Amino acid sequence: MLPYIAEFLGTMMLILLGDGVVANVTLNKSGMKGAGSIQITFAWGLAVMVPAFIFGAASGASFNPALTLALAIDGSFDWALVPGYIIAQFAGAFVGAVLVYILFKGQFDATDNPATKLGVFSTSPSVPNMPLNILSEAVGTFVLVFAIKGIANVPGIAGGLDKFLVFGIIVSVGMSLGGLTGYAINPARDIGPRLAHAVLPISGKGSSNWGYAIVTLVGPIIGAVVAVLLYGVIPW
Amino acid sequence: MLPYIAEFLGTMMLILLGDGVVANVTLNKSGMKGAGSIQITFAWGLAVMVPAFIFGAASGASFNPALTLALAIDGSFDWALVPGYIIAQFAGAFVGAVLVYILFKGQFDATDNPATKLGVFSTSPSVPNMPLNILSEAVGTFVLVFAIKGIANVPGIAGGLDKFLVFGIIVSVGMSLGGLTGYAINPARDIGPRLAHAVLPISGKGSSNWGYAIVTLVGPIIGAVVAVLLYGVIPW
Amino acid sequence: MLPYIAEFLGTMMLILLGDGVVANVTLNKSGMKGAGSIQITFAWGLAVMVPAFIFGAASGASFNPALTLALAIDGSFDWALVPGYIIAQFAGAFVGAVLVYILFKGQFDATDNPATKLGVFSTSPSVPNMPLNILSEAVGTFVLVFAIKGIANVPGIAGGLDKFLVFGIIVSVGMSLGGLTGYAINPARDIGPRLAHAVLPISGKGSSNWGYAIVTLVGPIIGAVVAVLLYGVIPW
Amino acid sequence: MLPYIAEFLGTMMLILLGDGVVANVTLNKSGMKGAGSIQITFAWGLAVMVPAFIFGAASGASFNPALTLALAIDGSFDWALVPGYIIAQFAGAFVGAVLVYILFKGQFDATDNPATKLGVFSTSPSVPNMPLNILSEAVGTFVLVFAIKGIANVPGIAGGLDKFLVFGIIVSVGMSLGGLTGYAINPARDIGPRLAHAVLPISGKGSSNWGYAIVTLVGPIIGAVVAVLLYGVIPW
Repeated sequence: MLPYIAEFLGTMMLILLGDGVVANVTLNKSGMKGAGSIQITFAWGLAVMVPAFIFGAASGASFNPALTLALAIDGSFDWALVPGYIIAQFAGAFVGAVLVYILFKGQFDATDNPATKLGVFSTSPSVPNMPLNILSEAVGTFVLVFAIKGIANVPGIAGGLDKFLVFGIIVSVGMSLGGLTGYAINPARDIGPRLAHAVLPISGKGSSNWGYAIVTLVGPIIGAVVAVLLYGVIPW
Repeated sequence: MLPYIAEFLGTMMLILLGDGVVANVTLNKSGMKGAGSIQITFAWGLAVMVPAFIFGAASGASFNPALTLALAIDGSFDWALVPGYIIAQFAGAFVGAVLVYILFKGQFDATDNPATKLGVFSTSPSVPNMPLNILSEAVGTFVLVFAIKGIANVPGIAGGLDKFLVFGIIVSVGMSLGGLTGYAINPARDIGPRLAHAVLPISGKGSSNWGYAIVTLVGPIIGAVVAVLLYGVIPW
Repeated sequence: MLPYIAEFLGTMMLILLGDGVVANVTLNKSGMKGAGSIQITFAWGLAVMVPAFIFGAASGASFNPALTLALAIDGSFDWALVPGYIIAQFAGAFVGAVLVYILFKGQFDATDNPATKLGVFSTSPSVPNMPLNILSEAVGTFVLVFAIKGIANVPGIAGGLDKFLVFGIIVSVGMSLGGLTGYAINPARDIGPRLAHAVLPISGKGSSNWGYAIVTLVGPIIGAVVAVLLYGVIPW
Repeated sequence: MLPYIAEFLGTMMLILLGDGVVANVTLNKSGMKGAGSIQITFAWGLAVMVPAFIFGAASGASFNPALTLALAIDGSFDWALVPGYIIAQFAGAFVGAVLVYILFKGQFDATDNPATKLGVFSTSPSVPNMPLNILSEAVGTFVLVFAIKGIANVPGIAGGLDKFLVFGIIVSVGMSLGGLTGYAINPARDIGPRLAHAVLPISGKGSSNWGYAIVTLVGPIIGAVVAVLLYGVIPW
């Protein structure tokens, strides 16, 4: 049970801190409103790194169905664990988003724009264009997964430094490509909170924009799978 | 005596640097006025990390009554030391806040808003709501303490990297949840400086808002205790 | 073949993430438009660090013709590999820039200023003055290469920490000197993407300003060569 | 000769990158004008860290007469080397400032305010008050030197991590206290560039404000000496 518990709790913490920073920086009456994309990208990096340290030994700290799937295709993760991991990841992301809603209830009530409210939970493209948006998510996830494969093979790396590098990868993808589609690069990160948005009694909320969820499902999976396949054919 | 001295000096340095950045960024006539929440959260992370390196070997570098208490409940800290640690932490926080006042005397005199002056010393909620404010402080402290338990158990982590992670945890909680209640997540950090605000002859100061101190006392203790209890029941 | 593949892919990733952050922060309709030079410099540092970890063991992760050349002059890199490395670096930079164009197609179309569009690909001076611009690029590259030589000789440094230091060096040069000429400090970083700008069908693009390319070719080479020569004469 | 060369070159690099970021962020026609105190403090931290890695083994990487003096008083540095170190530090700081002037000549010419020009070279107080300004410099230097003593005694710290911590200390002092007096915390950092300001033919420059130099000479020495004395009496 431990790996599933770890994936659930880790993904919950990831979304609590990750959706948390978006709420913290974009909702009215938050004391840090307007801090902008440097705080958002830096904090998302930490939102992955902190649970990665805590749960790394227990589950490998994937927190991402696209990564879990790609590592199974790659042969470096047990297929039997894949369904449980993915369920735990989506469930954790959903619960994390509910926590963010509870904590920021007063700030949600003070914010009128439905798009800002949805933006706390889920991603959206700055220029809607489904093929290009899928490509954007695929490229971002490619960098993430290719780099994760790479750091697992750095010779003689000091213990724990790999997780600081995960922070760097997440911040890098966010700062360099995040303005395109909000860098979900993880179906659970986008769809779990989108479900929370759909079911929670958020005052004045608009559509949960389910039509876009296909982008954050398909894009990351393509990117992750291409990353492990390309990594596998390079004659390291 | 050494552990008590270390907790006193470490908490003093924590508040000198932590309340210092708030003064540095919010008071009139400071050369860095207006730098915003990125500088505040980054500097608070450093304000914990720097003394954690210096005093870690001497006292464990708790600097936080809620953490000290939770570790004692957890069985990983000696109950006999708890009262002395807590006294040292509150005293250090008080003295650190007095130092900030002395250094920024000219800037305090140049600032009119009583809330800005109190904000250098102590935290306040962006939306007052006592149960939700307590929950916010509890969740932030939960993340802090659960993560501290986690990093103490990372296998093979390189020496000293755990303290860089403490920096990451503090920045993460601040950037993601700090807009709610100012993330005291430490009763000494809030109440020691609040006492300094009450007794110092600050020109044009307003109320020290003692009614809110219950939030930063109760919230962090709940969060810290729940963190060690949950950490303890997970079958690692 | 592996070192050449690694240099190609690494430089491609460097430009994808490096030119990416400029697009992300300066083009209209990007969700992170206006984030400014802190995000740009931080992300360029990560854009070097992430592929340096991935490809360091395979090729040494130079990604920079000036560095490759200087290390050959220094005697610490095989001259026979130099032509292939440099071709791979320019090719990778070109392809990386093409990827940025494809991903940000909608944002390029929404941006009118031709200088902003060119600025995503290549550097330009804030005050045009060819001798001084060459000096600026030479000094920035001197710091980069001198520091790379230095970290290769730090006694007892923990495995992998050198690459975090590379991040620090790149960010340092960018934050401290980047406002002069945009800190190319690497001929491939500037000229590969400039070629992409010249051949891509970017709507409303202006001149590719090839006259300036001599600065980013000559300046970095001078700085890199002086760095290894000076490093070599110091009686360490 | 090597330690003196290392102190000279290291302090030169420190001021090139440190005064460089101030020029980069405050002078007209710099491409990064207006980036503010986060970039300034972050880059000053890197300006110390990068040469500390390069020259640490050769000279101990002091770069600071107050630190050198305090370590000699402390008994952990050879008195016979003190005069040569201090001369090298002031000379390096002077040359570094001259380099910044040459590189940013076009930007200096485009800037009218004499105080902004002087601010690239040297520090000044936001509220002039000599005793309090000396205290501010003393407290900042106390934190620096006390922390340097502390990290030299962290048991089992991974090689090189101490220098990342030096980065953290410098950024911490800058972000938390830098708005008071510009955190010289180093007589050579302030007085070497002030001399450069006095002798260089800067168009439209004003007074070099030598009356203030006593603050950055006396304050850091007091803070550094008190730090080693206090560190020495604590029963570690």
